[in-house]
Amino acid sequence: MRIGLGTVVLCADLAGTVVFAAEGAMAAMMRGLDLFGIMVVAFVVALGGGMIRDVLIGAAPPSAIRDWRYPVLAFLTGLGVFACRRLLHVAPGGHVLAVLDAAGLSLFAVAGAEKALSYGIGPLAAALMGMLTGVGGGVMRDVLLARVPLILVSDIYATAALAGASVVVAGRRLALPTGAVAGAGALTCFCLRLAALRYGWRLPGGT
Amino acid sequence: MRIGLGTVVLCADLAGTVVFAAEGAMAAMMRGLDLFGIMVVAFVVALGGGMIRDVLIGAAPPSAIRDWRYPVLAFLTGLGVFACRRLLHVAPGGHVLAVLDAAGLSLFAVAGAEKALSYGIGPLAAALMGMLTGVGGGVMRDVLLARVPLILVSDIYATAALAGASVVVAGRRLALPTGAVAGAGALTCFCLRLAALRYGWRLPGGT
Amino acid sequence: MRIGLGTVVLCADLAGTVVFAAEGAMAAMMRGLDLFGIMVVAFVVALGGGMIRDVLIGAAPPSAIRDWRYPVLAFLTGLGVFACRRLLHVAPGGHVLAVLDAAGLSLFAVAGAEKALSYGIGPLAAALMGMLTGVGGGVMRDVLLARVPLILVSDIYATAALAGASVVVAGRRLALPTGAVAGAGALTCFCLRLAALRYGWRLPGGT
Repeated sequence: MRIGLGTVVLCADLAGTVVFAAEGAMAAMMRGLDLFGIMVVAFVVALGGGMIRDVLIGAAPPSAIRDWRYPVLAFLTGLGVFACRRLLHVAPGGHVLAVLDAAGLSLFAVAGAEKALSYGIGPLAAALMGMLTGVGGGVMRDVLLARVPLILVSDIYATAALAGASVVVAGRRLALPTGAVAGAGALTCFCLRLAALRYGWRLPGGT
Repeated sequence: MRIGLGTVVLCADLAGTVVFAAEGAMAAMMRGLDLFGIMVVAFVVALGGGMIRDVLIGAAPPSAIRDWRYPVLAFLTGLGVFACRRLLHVAPGGHVLAVLDAAGLSLFAVAGAEKALSYGIGPLAAALMGMLTGVGGGVMRDVLLARVPLILVSDIYATAALAGASVVVAGRRLALPTGAVAGAGALTCFCLRLAALRYGWRLPGGT
Repeated sequence: MRIGLGTVVLCADLAGTVVFAAEGAMAAMMRGLDLFGIMVVAFVVALGGGMIRDVLIGAAPPSAIRDWRYPVLAFLTGLGVFACRRLLHVAPGGHVLAVLDAAGLSLFAVAGAEKALSYGIGPLAAALMGMLTGVGGGVMRDVLLARVPLILVSDIYATAALAGASVVVAGRRLALPTGAVAGAGALTCFCLRLAALRYGWRLPGGT
């Protein structure tokens, strides 16, 4: 049995949506937002990056508007997190969350770069669009919560997404097999992000 | 004599623009912005939601750019509020403002959902676009004023817009008469918003 | 030898990109952002206004995505500022910066209005798009740094951009020679901005 790349990318995209919606819902709950605010932030974190990317590459309406599965998934996840809010003191642990988040970031970075390339965007901009897909939702969350976006002040996060997206762009330029390129890009982002967390890597210049 | 739906929607849209521009100008004046800042915030509150909606549904350039009546109306309203700033300590009362604001919200929610449907957007996304049209300008105002958007932390506001937009989407799906559907949607949003204010309704989870 | 208007506009655009990227990088460094954050803010300040304009006038993908020279220039400038950060205590002086910034603002205002007109946008909206091109990047920087945009609270800045863009729009309406119109628009913005700085001009209503 053979699973096509389209299926893999779609599954990855939807899985990333779930992870990021859950994160957004938790952040909103910690700030004391009501159920509606929680749903908005879950939606924005999960789908905001992809929506900005789609508008910028000329793919309006964005897939989050065109395809009902994306918003439904984000809202159901937000609802689920809200329903389980009593359990959040015990589970899931920070390690599990960090790994899930790195996975979501990797999936979005790869999917974003692939989509930008498929719309005829050049290599540098496509790598940036991959990064934007991964981090855009988080930036919008922080803007809505009126704080400096975490990715601007903290460790290697967007840089990992950019590295993963760059691997995808480079692999496509070299005409390597699509599946291998996507896998290598996701793995690059994932490992870089977790290694940065584990060993406390930072870029120069931060405080 | 018969007034077409197009006329009604346009009038509603322009009336909503005036109400929201006035609100934005007042908020900007309370934060000590100068005349230019007041005009910007008036413009953003009145037209920001519709502009984001138009970009997302693939209707660029947005009507606020395409049709000069929208910006002119927003600016004239902002100027008028600024000119009357000495009078603001006495009038208009909070009750009048709340009713006007609920009216503007209702009109924008209905017009937004109708426009999204007319661009072939699916039902769920069209309801969200209606809500976004109603609340987007206020969110942009709060982002510019560097505070957490009011609609994320406070009572039933965006929820009312979503309910009104959903009525429009459902009515269109059932092929009910356009005018009745628009009226029912606006009324739903308007009554829900005012009832929430009057009885202090809140969604669960807020602080 | 004759230099075409297209060349002049492109050079102006790229020069404005460098000036604004440098300003963004300095603002990011003063807030303690790391190298990545500095690059993001440099990119956003230099290219954010033009990107929003292009999306709004229906010119997606924006030239910052379509043309790799824009992001490369912004990033190289950000890197250069970061590399020279030890020198920033002494040079460049505030006066030099202010003049450069006024030049960038003027160039962007003119280029933005011209581009909007060339996409068939009406005169009022085209003047607004020129202003947006000039100030949009700075507004996005302030939103990302979680502060009220400087242009909303301070002196004549966006107003100068609007005046310059209006001169361009009016000149085009009167079918005056393109080069003269662009020069007059840029000069209007530049002189107005520097005069406002020099004589402390302010709009009414500010604090």
